[in-house]
Amino acid sequence: MLEIFREIRQEIECLEEELRKIVSDADPLIKDTSIHLINAGGKRLRPAFSFLAGKFYNYDYKKVLPLAVALELIHMATLVHDDVVDSSMTRRNIPTVKAMWGNKISTHLGDYLFGKSLKLIAWYGNSEIARVLADTSVKMCEGEIQQLATANKADQTVRDYFYRIKRKTALLIAASCQLGAAACGAPESIRRPLKRYGHCIGMAFQITDDILDLVADQKKLGKPIGSDLRQGIVTLPLIYALKHSPERERLAEIVTGEEKSGEEISEACELILSCGGVEYAGRVAQKYVDNARDELKSLPDIPARRTLETVAEFISVRKF
Amino acid sequence: MLEIFREIRQEIECLEEELRKIVSDADPLIKDTSIHLINAGGKRLRPAFSFLAGKFYNYDYKKVLPLAVALELIHMATLVHDDVVDSSMTRRNIPTVKAMWGNKISTHLGDYLFGKSLKLIAWYGNSEIARVLADTSVKMCEGEIQQLATANKADQTVRDYFYRIKRKTALLIAASCQLGAAACGAPESIRRPLKRYGHCIGMAFQITDDILDLVADQKKLGKPIGSDLRQGIVTLPLIYALKHSPERERLAEIVTGEEKSGEEISEACELILSCGGVEYAGRVAQKYVDNARDELKSLPDIPARRTLETVAEFISVRKF
Repeated sequence: MLEIFREIRQEIECLEEELRKIVSDADPLIKDTSIHLINAGGKRLRPAFSFLAGKFYNYDYKKVLPLAVALELIHMATLVHDDVVDSSMTRRNIPTVKAMWGNKISTHLGDYLFGKSLKLIAWYGNSEIARVLADTSVKMCEGEIQQLATANKADQTVRDYFYRIKRKTALLIAASCQLGAAACGAPESIRRPLKRYGHCIGMAFQITDDILDLVADQKKLGKPIGSDLRQGIVTLPLIYALKHSPERERLAEIVTGEEKSGEEISEACELILSCGGVEYAGRVAQKYVDNARDELKSLPDIPARRTLETVAEFISVRKF
Repeated sequence: MLEIFREIRQEIECLEEELRKIVSDADPLIKDTSIHLINAGGKRLRPAFSFLAGKFYNYDYKKVLPLAVALELIHMATLVHDDVVDSSMTRRNIPTVKAMWGNKISTHLGDYLFGKSLKLIAWYGNSEIARVLADTSVKMCEGEIQQLATANKADQTVRDYFYRIKRKTALLIAASCQLGAAACGAPESIRRPLKRYGHCIGMAFQITDDILDLVADQKKLGKPIGSDLRQGIVTLPLIYALKHSPERERLAEIVTGEEKSGEEISEACELILSCGGVEYAGRVAQKYVDNARDELKSLPDIPARRTLETVAEFISVRKF
């Protein structure tokens, strides 16, 4: 668990326990693959946001727990399906389910985990929770499909990029914040700024992820540098470089190539870095972080608010 | 549309329209792939059952329509994901989404269609509908994963087979019947026999499907004979033959082989047929059909009941 989440250490421990419990009586194959996924870890960001958001109104962690588990299951399901699509063999330095069990299991396991989340969501009988998560899951797919449709295309705009990362990442984090509060019965005046905070944090988080794909320590990142580029995913630093690099024609040539060699990936990374693409993306991420912190100002000044501020700071300085 | 469903011709026309409408404003890639799927057709069995079930209590097709669309979307989503898993290139003589657009699109498109169904389900704010469909979607995955786990295994029991086809097929058909009535506010005394009818029909339907995989006219079936066997799926006629065929050792040898030649598939089909495996499965299917018809007896004697009886008869004689 991230140190900044110490305020909700017990909640996250309950979450880990619930995640294990939920697959404990499943068939051996489902259990093994799910436990592998759960053990592979992750920051548990979405559950953490839902607990912290719940603290702003009539908090009882038991009211938030099923939602928190559902959010992490949805996130896990998308990761398993993404690994099928991206043919990823490791994630966070750990072999993927796809690498260990293959595409067939991964496809059904993703569906299974998603189905389990629906059971938890149905338990609430809260129409806001059901509607927001249904809408979010559709939009997440739209983002992924747009990513496939625009792979290896050099003529993408910042707007295309924002459309995509909002769907891929920001919406589920916004939903985590909004619905954590909703699960405790919080009014619109609390749910709305939390949702906006989550949106900004999600955008900043994904932009930082895309920067780290170019500049991180490969070991800490748990996957090779330039993975996005290799898959044809055009991220913000690259969009900047495709417009501002003196070598933008060469860069476009590499980006549009179907198969990219290791040398080409390195060359493209150099070109993006040398023209200031990473600094530009860093400034955009910082703007989202600032906006996220602004959204918190209308909320009650409780310890959870300070934690959410710290999360915002962490997003922009994180190295993994 | 099947002739037996003429009673709900207009409802099915509305359904087709709604299916198209639901993807009409999507990104071009989502729209094209979805329309391809919708045009590929299908019997629209699940929506048909939901409309017919609705007729037993305070019927208004508008109350059932969102559910009917959601049921067909869930069914379509599972087909798209199954085609990824089975590497199927045609279905009903039409190229699959996987064959035309590949695994990546198929994975996300399945998730997208499933997400769209959730939006419709959330619209009801009916906890029975949400819970039954969440539970069904989890169990459907359990069935698919058990099918993968038991592929090419010759030591399966009739019980394993029933476990699997209940999850793969019968539960969603049972849910269609139960929830079609629930959407109109029908009491338990109507929902329960309809659910049981749907269960029996679903079991009979899948057993008949598995028989047709061995004996159908290949053109009418829209896929090669012996497809299940080729994929290592052990169906009821085969389970019977593995126990009763004088050549059961040879049959087990073929079944357990990882790669099966065309000659081996033909040989296995012959062995299953010659020992009476198909007749046995036919008798089991007929038993489910009889039970399905019995369940209808407690329901009001309206035209929809007669249609459901006819559907039961059709299941056991259908050739495609």
